[in-house]
Amino acid sequence: MSNRLRHLVDPLDLSMEETRRLLDLAESIADDREAFAHKCDGKILATLFYEPSTRTRLSFESAMMRLGGKVLGFSSAASSSASKGESVADTIRMISCYADIAAMRHNKEGAPRIAAQYAGIPVINAGDGGHQHPTQTLTDLLTIRREKKRLNNLTIGLCGDLKFGRTVHSLIKSLVRCENIRFVFISPEELHVPSYIIDEVVKPSGCAYKEVRTMDEVLPELDVLYMTRVQRERFFNEEDYIRLKDSYILDGEKMKLAPEDLIVLHPLPRVNEIAVEVDNDPRAKYFVQAQNGVFVRMALILMLLGVEPGLYEEETSC
Amino acid sequence: MSNRLRHLVDPLDLSMEETRRLLDLAESIADDREAFAHKCDGKILATLFYEPSTRTRLSFESAMMRLGGKVLGFSSAASSSASKGESVADTIRMISCYADIAAMRHNKEGAPRIAAQYAGIPVINAGDGGHQHPTQTLTDLLTIRREKKRLNNLTIGLCGDLKFGRTVHSLIKSLVRCENIRFVFISPEELHVPSYIIDEVVKPSGCAYKEVRTMDEVLPELDVLYMTRVQRERFFNEEDYIRLKDSYILDGEKMKLAPEDLIVLHPLPRVNEIAVEVDNDPRAKYFVQAQNGVFVRMALILMLLGVEPGLYEEETSC
Amino acid sequence: MSNRLRHLVDPLDLSMEETRRLLDLAESIADDREAFAHKCDGKILATLFYEPSTRTRLSFESAMMRLGGKVLGFSSAASSSASKGESVADTIRMISCYADIAAMRHNKEGAPRIAAQYAGIPVINAGDGGHQHPTQTLTDLLTIRREKKRLNNLTIGLCGDLKFGRTVHSLIKSLVRCENIRFVFISPEELHVPSYIIDEVVKPSGCAYKEVRTMDEVLPELDVLYMTRVQRERFFNEEDYIRLKDSYILDGEKMKLAPEDLIVLHPLPRVNEIAVEVDNDPRAKYFVQAQNGVFVRMALILMLLGVEPGLYEEETSC
Repeated sequence: MSNRLRHLVDPLDLSMEETRRLLDLAESIADDREAFAHKCDGKILATLFYEPSTRTRLSFESAMMRLGGKVLGFSSAASSSASKGESVADTIRMISCYADIAAMRHNKEGAPRIAAQYAGIPVINAGDGGHQHPTQTLTDLLTIRREKKRLNNLTIGLCGDLKFGRTVHSLIKSLVRCENIRFVFISPEELHVPSYIIDEVVKPSGCAYKEVRTMDEVLPELDVLYMTRVQRERFFNEEDYIRLKDSYILDGEKMKLAPEDLIVLHPLPRVNEIAVEVDNDPRAKYFVQAQNGVFVRMALILMLLGVEPGLYEEETSC
Repeated sequence: MSNRLRHLVDPLDLSMEETRRLLDLAESIADDREAFAHKCDGKILATLFYEPSTRTRLSFESAMMRLGGKVLGFSSAASSSASKGESVADTIRMISCYADIAAMRHNKEGAPRIAAQYAGIPVINAGDGGHQHPTQTLTDLLTIRREKKRLNNLTIGLCGDLKFGRTVHSLIKSLVRCENIRFVFISPEELHVPSYIIDEVVKPSGCAYKEVRTMDEVLPELDVLYMTRVQRERFFNEEDYIRLKDSYILDGEKMKLAPEDLIVLHPLPRVNEIAVEVDNDPRAKYFVQAQNGVFVRMALILMLLGVEPGLYEEETSC
Repeated sequence: MSNRLRHLVDPLDLSMEETRRLLDLAESIADDREAFAHKCDGKILATLFYEPSTRTRLSFESAMMRLGGKVLGFSSAASSSASKGESVADTIRMISCYADIAAMRHNKEGAPRIAAQYAGIPVINAGDGGHQHPTQTLTDLLTIRREKKRLNNLTIGLCGDLKFGRTVHSLIKSLVRCENIRFVFISPEELHVPSYIIDEVVKPSGCAYKEVRTMDEVLPELDVLYMTRVQRERFFNEEDYIRLKDSYILDGEKMKLAPEDLIVLHPLPRVNEIAVEVDNDPRAKYFVQAQNGVFVRMALILMLLGVEPGLYEEETSC
């Protein structure tokens, strides 16, 4: 176990081997929560949410509390020192005096990276603008692995807003590191996967992929269907949002076209892109995903704090 | 002890027998707080306050902490996922992954009932619009029982805003289940008890009641005087509020008319409907009431989590 | 150890002897944090922040959590009962039912004093308007004592906004009680030390002092340089703020003029009055100061709760 400070800002900060160990630990936690209930007794997590995100914040808080730790922080920029003109660098140095680990959500891309540079404690990026959201990616990977029993040999459909959806981009970047992954991108013309993702991430990896405009034609061939919310705040005008938001809705009829062993994921919150009638379908795994998000964050906190090993493969190979 | 999930949305969700057991447990807690200090170690309460209410939220948080548990949540809709269009049903399913029990305050009547339908954990209604606020009612009942040593054979004056005050309506609905209760409704014409409460609750119960316009005439006959705040937010226009808010003020002069064993209750916050000079009168019990609110919530959390028995009378009678 | 309730509203509520004991305890905590990790198990701190202040709030919360205690409260007036018209007196009586000790920040001067009068628990003033901020003063004193190994025989430069800066006023009032203190007030004409501080505090104490307009001329003679933020919210108009805020900036060039054993303090948050290049200078102690703020608050909580002795010198001398 090393004393070197580690952070998680980009999902790719973790090697595939480190990611595998983290998912192993998350599964151990899921199998025996009691065994981990006091691992962080006396430790404090700071949740620094410059942008509100109840779901992510509470997931982190639950994770720390389930480990026996405590939580302090703020849930919007209005109640932070930022309103007094303080820099992220200064804030994280102060927080390093108050807590043992921090999770930061920020509307500005790159803010968590800056925080990590100045921090005296491990920093976890809990989402920075349209950029990265690594614990969501880890949650997605854990859910796929727990449900499908593998992270390779998979055909994965990604549906909805593939242009602005950072969870989609991060998931693609992580999955190209696995073997024999095939992507099916399902989106309207206006919201298709950015070309840099195709050209710089997917193509170089050798992963097969195709782009389609409707779900129906590809549902039968999918192992995983990853639905995304069409986020109002990413649109430049209200008309485009209204025209497109209902275009890619998964309902009971469409589910009839899908294989029996499909799993449906969604980073949540869902608005109406998955009809509520799908919720009771055993293939709907988006609420299971929310639970997995707690396990993954528990594992991450344990490894970043050095309570559990796994993040320092260089050392262990010596 | 049953594994069946129970919630508390309406005070009448509890039978009078269950209510009695809950008050018994609350009194045991009041008598020996230390004995309960670790009953919820490792448990998490989620406080889901779509509408701010410091008093109620902190009372719940204190209750859980006094049991050894932890708390996460949000204190206004602005910092909740609701602002992203998420339904209450989805939110509570997510929260069920993060916490062991939830207290929900919502501006929309019925929201906690919907939450209870979809929850994987017990849900407590912490106030829904002008509708129900069951833990306030239980607090009132506990205070009456601890101070008067009985919940029957009582003449109870309810004063102030009897039209919009949900605590008043809930208290009436609970008390009609006790024996030999007499109600005295003291309010201006504009804020009198709604006729459905009289016709559907009071009259069928056989409880005696009368309606009066001034306090002075009835003070000598009361065992309990329940004062209420005239809430600005319930009024349609500012003029009515200003004209009526000062009409029903309890002060030292009026207290001289009251019996020596009267108790004065108020759900708080108080604005000016009770003069501060009354605070030092030994008959003023509204701050004791605030303390009882913690004990009642501790008892409720313990029973809903199944840590203490008492909510499953059907089973115990088998 | 006495059962008499004590509060901290003004730094001068503590005698110099009590202050010394509190700093002793804070140093003991700094030297062996583990020894104090469970001193407040089962205790609850209420953080009542009517005005947002992330830094101060989180410092208090961290302090209580590092002692094993828990925290509840609110971080802005909007989420407090004050918005329903409740008085501070009523709020603190309610909070006394929920928590064991309270830290209050209020925009109105004197509010914490009123709270202390009605509280059933110890109340700590966490800043009231432009008035007092005693835990900041204690933090400053601890940092000077830990770094300089003394609280007497010091030349202390105070720079920036000396007119509105409450931390400056409080620090002066505390330091005049020490021996052989010399003050150097460095500020623009518009923001100089109020004459009542000079006439009623500094002069009667016999402390030497001088007022200057620029830093450079006095830097060589200082033991301590206390920098302050020029707070936008204290100005009557934006133009004055913009004209003056950059006038008193400490940078690497100026640091060359200062003695090797100078220490630079700042109550934080810093905007631009200390250039970031100074951060790596070993004489920069403002982040150490943030850490000391936690130790001082831990000591204060322990002494106000009576867990550790030291606040009741009358008794101990009996």
